[in-house]
Amino acid sequence: MTTRKLHLNAFLMSNGHHEAAWRLPESDPFVNHDAAYFTRLAQTAERGLLDSVFFADSPALMGNVGRRPASVLEPTVLLAAMATATSRIGLIATASTTYNDPYNLARRFASLDHISRGRAGWNIVTTATLDAARNFGLDDLPAHRERYERAAEFVDVARRLWDSWQDDAIVGDKSVGTWAVADRVKAIDHSGRHHRVRGPLNTARSPQGHPLLVQAGSSENGKEFAARHAEAIFTAQQTLADAQAFYRDVRTRAAGAGRDPDQLKILPGIVPVIGSTEREARELDAELDRLIVPEYARAQLARTLRLPPERLPLDAPLPPDLPAEDEIEGAKSRYTLIVELARSENLTVRQLIGRLGGGRGHRTFAGTPEQIADTIEHWFHSGAADGFNVMPAVLPSGLDAFVDHVVPLLQARGLFRTEYTGRTLRDHYGLPRPADRGPAPVLANGKAG
Amino acid sequence: MTTRKLHLNAFLMSNGHHEAAWRLPESDPFVNHDAAYFTRLAQTAERGLLDSVFFADSPALMGNVGRRPASVLEPTVLLAAMATATSRIGLIATASTTYNDPYNLARRFASLDHISRGRAGWNIVTTATLDAARNFGLDDLPAHRERYERAAEFVDVARRLWDSWQDDAIVGDKSVGTWAVADRVKAIDHSGRHHRVRGPLNTARSPQGHPLLVQAGSSENGKEFAARHAEAIFTAQQTLADAQAFYRDVRTRAAGAGRDPDQLKILPGIVPVIGSTEREARELDAELDRLIVPEYARAQLARTLRLPPERLPLDAPLPPDLPAEDEIEGAKSRYTLIVELARSENLTVRQLIGRLGGGRGHRTFAGTPEQIADTIEHWFHSGAADGFNVMPAVLPSGLDAFVDHVVPLLQARGLFRTEYTGRTLRDHYGLPRPADRGPAPVLANGKAG
Repeated sequence: MTTRKLHLNAFLMSNGHHEAAWRLPESDPFVNHDAAYFTRLAQTAERGLLDSVFFADSPALMGNVGRRPASVLEPTVLLAAMATATSRIGLIATASTTYNDPYNLARRFASLDHISRGRAGWNIVTTATLDAARNFGLDDLPAHRERYERAAEFVDVARRLWDSWQDDAIVGDKSVGTWAVADRVKAIDHSGRHHRVRGPLNTARSPQGHPLLVQAGSSENGKEFAARHAEAIFTAQQTLADAQAFYRDVRTRAAGAGRDPDQLKILPGIVPVIGSTEREARELDAELDRLIVPEYARAQLARTLRLPPERLPLDAPLPPDLPAEDEIEGAKSRYTLIVELARSENLTVRQLIGRLGGGRGHRTFAGTPEQIADTIEHWFHSGAADGFNVMPAVLPSGLDAFVDHVVPLLQARGLFRTEYTGRTLRDHYGLPRPADRGPAPVLANGKAG
Repeated sequence: MTTRKLHLNAFLMSNGHHEAAWRLPESDPFVNHDAAYFTRLAQTAERGLLDSVFFADSPALMGNVGRRPASVLEPTVLLAAMATATSRIGLIATASTTYNDPYNLARRFASLDHISRGRAGWNIVTTATLDAARNFGLDDLPAHRERYERAAEFVDVARRLWDSWQDDAIVGDKSVGTWAVADRVKAIDHSGRHHRVRGPLNTARSPQGHPLLVQAGSSENGKEFAARHAEAIFTAQQTLADAQAFYRDVRTRAAGAGRDPDQLKILPGIVPVIGSTEREARELDAELDRLIVPEYARAQLARTLRLPPERLPLDAPLPPDLPAEDEIEGAKSRYTLIVELARSENLTVRQLIGRLGGGRGHRTFAGTPEQIADTIEHWFHSGAADGFNVMPAVLPSGLDAFVDHVVPLLQARGLFRTEYTGRTLRDHYGLPRPADRGPAPVLANGKAG
């Protein structure tokens, strides 16, 4: 019997996930354009035997550029640059199904999977901001349901494009001059409501067959989509009870969709703020919160809540008359999480900003390596998580601390790998390589089906 | 006074530009998915102090997969992987304005320029194949004029997105908590016939300001587009007289568009087949031609000529009743080049296939390093070229031979650099970095203009 093992992803972001991390004395505020910086972070994650690194993304400038490093490199290109100086760590890029074409995006991920020799993952997002819509000829954000419907068709087309070459298509037979066998490469002739794509792809089937499919939305539509399509889920959960409910819910939906729930890995976000003592960790956390410029953070909160900023006095609780989730067309689950966090703990706007500034709704945990390992173990064994999306408040120091001090504890407890046993991202997550669709079946009349 | 210097680009393609190169004993037919292979080629080009390397591209599977390595990685992703193991060589990717969105593509090139520290170039194509159209929801190829009109608007939008951050926008001022200065980052609010893009980009201005803009079409629309927008042109010219006429024409058009013609570098393609003796070179050339499978090549020629393959008997000349260029909606200039080549030299289909198989209409030149250097020098000094797009028939050996045996001759003759004097791709081509658009001017009434 194999013991169930944790999966750990490092979510990389500029100087760290705390919005004020770039203001610390140790931080270089110009790292966002430096592929070598992110490569070193990936090498650290690889040294810690983590499953993968990951970048969020949206095709729009988000929020106030004064607030935090806002200029970001496009992640498929950045991860390709990082692939060559790493050998095992998985490389997961976010890309939007609303603002891409399936042919181009399927091809870019297949290319990244070839370049990395089987380490590519795609975090599928539908992009919930009006700012993005306006960069692509739209006046309004497409409706939530519409975006998810397009996403489902997009993923179906992408899978069929990845399968448009059989694994054995390329033979390279010099003697007769046949590079690939023509009838092992087929058009897909897709014609649907959102996409019409003939195919085949002009990039052959990649080492993993398909990149690992990841999803991060937690709305009703998002969970339903994840249950059908995702192989890993990044999710924001503030309490153990919420995480357990989410875990049960998504696995039940996956089973309902005819899938084995164990083939879907659920990774809540955790923002570790690590100190050698609990006090040291809390001091770092407090220092970070002091460095938040409240006006920037309040403007962002006001956007999320669809309110003018002046309706959010810093030292008062949220106003009582906020819209319900079903009136929100944007990031529904994030909206609800923020409102519930503020109400359940009776936080003022200033306090709420401090909580969100650390991890934008993910669970911030300031403590010693032992305390963080305890929390991880507890959630992992309580039906709340298959692993964690590790979001260090400060980078690179927070990732170094996690790898050097938390990972060894998890290994000593038998919860985490002590060496990589596979080579691909799918290997690390214990997920199978999708089989190709093989040759067309020969029917009784002798014609290909 | 500075002496005028040659510019040299290495056009990389699988096992070489000859369609049968993959069948040679020395060739590995599986290199197309191997970023390390292309990185070694780029390192060779860098050892030879070449200006740049370049990949062609189209978002469609081209021709018969049996014929030659047909599975290709997406070039922006591939060049990002190659950027980290090179330091000076320019990195030029082809991308289509017909089948991309300006926001995504402008951002990917800005990202590549950041990652490579100023070495990105964009070969702007409008993509002339029906196969591509059908991968993007279209039944027909958009009209030639329509594609170029969209391309012109696309490039304008891309430039404005690259300029949406001033060079001095990012200040990283930790003391007051200002990462970037908000009024140095501006929306572009573009609303045109083909594109509506609000901006700003979410990737700051890159080392080169804009990637180098390259163009390769030679139709009337293509030349007009190049004269207005391109900074380098890759072109196929079979004879010195044709090359001189093209060179004069494009420079005259550039001057007519208000540009300094010296800011537009014209690089005809040359397919060198290098031997230590002329006889050795001709034997390699003949061996390659023998390895062409004529049925594959004839099918491709028939597509280009819009004829059924059976109308092209291998040992007869082209049929007399071919359509005129203005009836062709695809790659017009290539069509005309092929027809004129066949007619002017009275070639049979088999002979024409041999000539095209080596370089798809580019000038194949089999000879010694001295002979190749002589041709390059002659064209360079005869008003036909500012440099060459070097398309080795066989890779890597043809690029090694060019770098080791032709480049030293060009250096000894004072035609080519003996060290890199700049760091960016623009530096290598002697082209200026576009200035940013600066702050909005303050008008006499004190308001921003």
